[in-house]
Amino acid sequence: MTKIIIVGGVAGGASAAARARRLSEEAQIIMFERGPFVSFANCGLPYHIGGDIKDRNKLLLQTPESFLARFNVDVRPLTEVISIDRINKTVTVRILSNSNVHKHSGYVNEFKTYTESYDYLLLSPGASPIVPPIAGIQNPLTYSLRNIPDMDKIINNIATNKPKHATVIGGGFIGLEMMEALHQLGIKTSLVEFADQVMTPVDKEMAGFLHQEIRDKGIDLRLEVALEAVKHNKSLDNTPGDLTLTLNNGDTIETDLLIMAIGVRPEIKLAQNAGLEIGQLGGIKTNAQLQTSDPAIYAVGDAIEEQDFITGKPTIIPLAGPANRQGRMAANNMFGRNESYQGTQGTAICKVFDLAIASTGQNEKLLIKDKVTYEKIYVHTASHASYYPGAETVSFKLLFDPKSGKILGAQAVGKDGIDKRIDIMAVAQRAGMTVEQLQHVELTYAPPFGSAKDVINQAAFVATKLMQGDIKAIHFNEIDHLTDQQVLVDVRNPSELSAGFIEGAINIPVDELRNRLNELPKDKEIIVYCQVGLRGNVAYHQLVNNGFKARNLLGGYRTYIFAKI
Amino acid sequence: MTKIIIVGGVAGGASAAARARRLSEEAQIIMFERGPFVSFANCGLPYHIGGDIKDRNKLLLQTPESFLARFNVDVRPLTEVISIDRINKTVTVRILSNSNVHKHSGYVNEFKTYTESYDYLLLSPGASPIVPPIAGIQNPLTYSLRNIPDMDKIINNIATNKPKHATVIGGGFIGLEMMEALHQLGIKTSLVEFADQVMTPVDKEMAGFLHQEIRDKGIDLRLEVALEAVKHNKSLDNTPGDLTLTLNNGDTIETDLLIMAIGVRPEIKLAQNAGLEIGQLGGIKTNAQLQTSDPAIYAVGDAIEEQDFITGKPTIIPLAGPANRQGRMAANNMFGRNESYQGTQGTAICKVFDLAIASTGQNEKLLIKDKVTYEKIYVHTASHASYYPGAETVSFKLLFDPKSGKILGAQAVGKDGIDKRIDIMAVAQRAGMTVEQLQHVELTYAPPFGSAKDVINQAAFVATKLMQGDIKAIHFNEIDHLTDQQVLVDVRNPSELSAGFIEGAINIPVDELRNRLNELPKDKEIIVYCQVGLRGNVAYHQLVNNGFKARNLLGGYRTYIFAKI
Repeated sequence: MTKIIIVGGVAGGASAAARARRLSEEAQIIMFERGPFVSFANCGLPYHIGGDIKDRNKLLLQTPESFLARFNVDVRPLTEVISIDRINKTVTVRILSNSNVHKHSGYVNEFKTYTESYDYLLLSPGASPIVPPIAGIQNPLTYSLRNIPDMDKIINNIATNKPKHATVIGGGFIGLEMMEALHQLGIKTSLVEFADQVMTPVDKEMAGFLHQEIRDKGIDLRLEVALEAVKHNKSLDNTPGDLTLTLNNGDTIETDLLIMAIGVRPEIKLAQNAGLEIGQLGGIKTNAQLQTSDPAIYAVGDAIEEQDFITGKPTIIPLAGPANRQGRMAANNMFGRNESYQGTQGTAICKVFDLAIASTGQNEKLLIKDKVTYEKIYVHTASHASYYPGAETVSFKLLFDPKSGKILGAQAVGKDGIDKRIDIMAVAQRAGMTVEQLQHVELTYAPPFGSAKDVINQAAFVATKLMQGDIKAIHFNEIDHLTDQQVLVDVRNPSELSAGFIEGAINIPVDELRNRLNELPKDKEIIVYCQVGLRGNVAYHQLVNNGFKARNLLGGYRTYIFAKI
Repeated sequence: MTKIIIVGGVAGGASAAARARRLSEEAQIIMFERGPFVSFANCGLPYHIGGDIKDRNKLLLQTPESFLARFNVDVRPLTEVISIDRINKTVTVRILSNSNVHKHSGYVNEFKTYTESYDYLLLSPGASPIVPPIAGIQNPLTYSLRNIPDMDKIINNIATNKPKHATVIGGGFIGLEMMEALHQLGIKTSLVEFADQVMTPVDKEMAGFLHQEIRDKGIDLRLEVALEAVKHNKSLDNTPGDLTLTLNNGDTIETDLLIMAIGVRPEIKLAQNAGLEIGQLGGIKTNAQLQTSDPAIYAVGDAIEEQDFITGKPTIIPLAGPANRQGRMAANNMFGRNESYQGTQGTAICKVFDLAIASTGQNEKLLIKDKVTYEKIYVHTASHASYYPGAETVSFKLLFDPKSGKILGAQAVGKDGIDKRIDIMAVAQRAGMTVEQLQHVELTYAPPFGSAKDVINQAAFVATKLMQGDIKAIHFNEIDHLTDQQVLVDVRNPSELSAGFIEGAINIPVDELRNRLNELPKDKEIIVYCQVGLRGNVAYHQLVNNGFKARNLLGGYRTYIFAKI
């Protein structure tokens, strides 16, 4: 009889437990969870705080009782695995009691400990929020959000203290979701981010769409600034100021509630103390079969280093999708399936008010850092037939290898159809498709759902032409550095210019260009742009086919201007 | 200077014209269109009739004037190409005048004809609605819908005659969309379909979801019946009955407006008269470069036979997506690009009231007809995290080669996320992915958009297990034919049975099964089922791992019962 011990009862651990039972009725399966809940909807926490998910019970997907009944898994919540004896294949656990856990102070007594043996051990401890050593950060109005008790505390604070103002530190997934949740509750909110953009999985010019959306909703967005100190004022009046935050630019924010969401760090203490190998990025090291350096011990989820699908390099991707599939695979491998994890693309999406923003694969920042040769294109086009109600612009960025055409990454932002486009790219990338092959994908089309030439086809057309030398492009980040050997031509209609244009451009609408070619010099390079790049492309071909040197601004004015927001 | 003549100014023709101009400024490009409009939104016509698209002008994507200004294309509407002289490379055209075209009778005079030479000719004449030779069908209250004038006539009829009742013959895309449009206008509607299902690109058990939706909306749906005769009553009173329809089962329908939408047939007359090769299915035959049997003549769109992506056999897929991409490719090839069309999967989607239904690749009917070995699985799961508001069930069918795991086709129906799932499958299929590889796809996940284990992952898990012999399945169509060596067990909760169960099943809820195994015989085969197949799978593994013979009903009761609707 195989005995399996699982450390951590959420995404990866719970998936592994359920799968292990389906593979064996005889196996003894014990799942330890330090917290009071197992298999809860981690990703739903901000949405319950914000009120979108009304019923807290909906977040509790399974209970120890339901796990026992359905999967005959011995679930032991409020039980922490504190050490592993790899030689004797045992773990020592400590029983935390409910009363202990809910205490505020660190002082607890009457811990009971005991040991359990294992044949296979699965580590799925997750990651914990990083709380930097900032003066004053240990105060009762500062929270991070990892689990149900954290969520309950934040809800409790809001109900009791009725904060007028809240501040979120960190513009990643949880930071953005908490910002929206607090705003939805009518609390004025500041969002503070150290980088020059929120949502670092995408590049800055794509994050620009979020920056505008966030500011449009009345959020006080502060980029390129860090929290330096927190002062707990215990103010009693009705104005914000229970906390005074000092930022590293000297600014202060008077706030009542502080959410720390600057990131998470793999929980590796247990693994490290057991002498298991830790990777260079600080996650538990595993092989493709998800075994740690001890073959009887598997590890999955946010705590591990995995292989990046594109580069093959180690990466840490704390996301639920990979965790769930890894848990299932680890269980399979314990029962001799010998499956290999195929690497993580880091496919991710976040809802930010009315926008969705998503990405898969590598972003441009990473490609530059890794010195990978790449090319990029931008497309802005309707989420479905523009003549059918409800169409919204999909702003899309595609990164690819200009030699092989291999897809390196994709990013998209907009109000509709964003998940679909990035899912398509994630599959195309995983299947090893090139941009040339991507031209031919045949997607669902009816006016309510798509276009005869979808965003994806259009992006692939542009990328392929760029790769094959059919077009010469200029990018938004080059436009502000034109020389006197270049002439900038805006080919939009004059009526469009009132909403903004690029300094120094002359205006010749595309439909007049053919008759006004004599206004342009043949010895200089003509840089054309329109709103999104499409008319620019028509103008580009007219110019080149008439003997001009030309380049078209990919993504047009829209990409150029959102890169500055 | 290259001279290009294009026959047909809608999807394929217009795409080719625009692309040809981008490739050459010097080329002379003339586009002939028999109708009064070019580049109109064919797929939007039913939505303007139904009122979703309010502004008729939105359907007119380009005009001859805009085409001239932007692409320097000489567009000649109301001009029909009546013959091709392949030896001398000329076409003869006939000018139709507006007044002629809008006349009801066939009598016209004063046709002017002339000839134009070409270097390359592109045929993009489309397909025309099939109107069968039914007694009485030539009457002023019977319409088909192919273009703007057809649409205008239907709108005119509705405005003038104020029909109380309408009948649509044919349950394909246009038939379903017209049914919805008429219903939306408050007109009681009958839908008559000769097959045992609407929407033949999907299989019957998937169409069952549509049948229920259609009936729930109050449509009089009649399957497996054909129109036999039409009588024009010229009734003057206020009750339906301007037309009396007689069906082949003896039933009659009193109706005021008849829409014929039984299908379309490639427009091949011009090609045929010119001696171009016609394929076995009745479409213009082309090679992979989209050339007809005359290398100077290309053909694209609804009029041609193309290669099925899966089987390599000829197929006719009258859809806008392929037409547009083919038009672009034909232009490329005229300018020496030598691109090859990669075959058509027939990816398609249709909105039917609150449902979307979509498919890609081969369906089961075609696989059976072509004697292809296949296996199938069903999954019904939430479009996004079920704890987040707005999640809807995606009902998903996957067809695959049980030896290689190659994806043969996919179908999906539901209220949310249908386009996305079939797009993912269309890309996976085109990339040559197997169901084993499909397990690893990493899709966007946040509660508003998806699930940590998406429909696609789940379907791939089930298919892979089935392929590898990890599970034994039974299908809905086998359930009504169990032998006395099989025992049917419903593993749902007793509370679920009131909504229906399969005759002869005994009920043992999955969570009680482990303790009630003694109630089941080991010498018979236990057939388990639940609502969608998931708990059935848990029960299946429990049984098999405890020494029982078992099979699980894939797709559960939901697939079983919708197959009967």
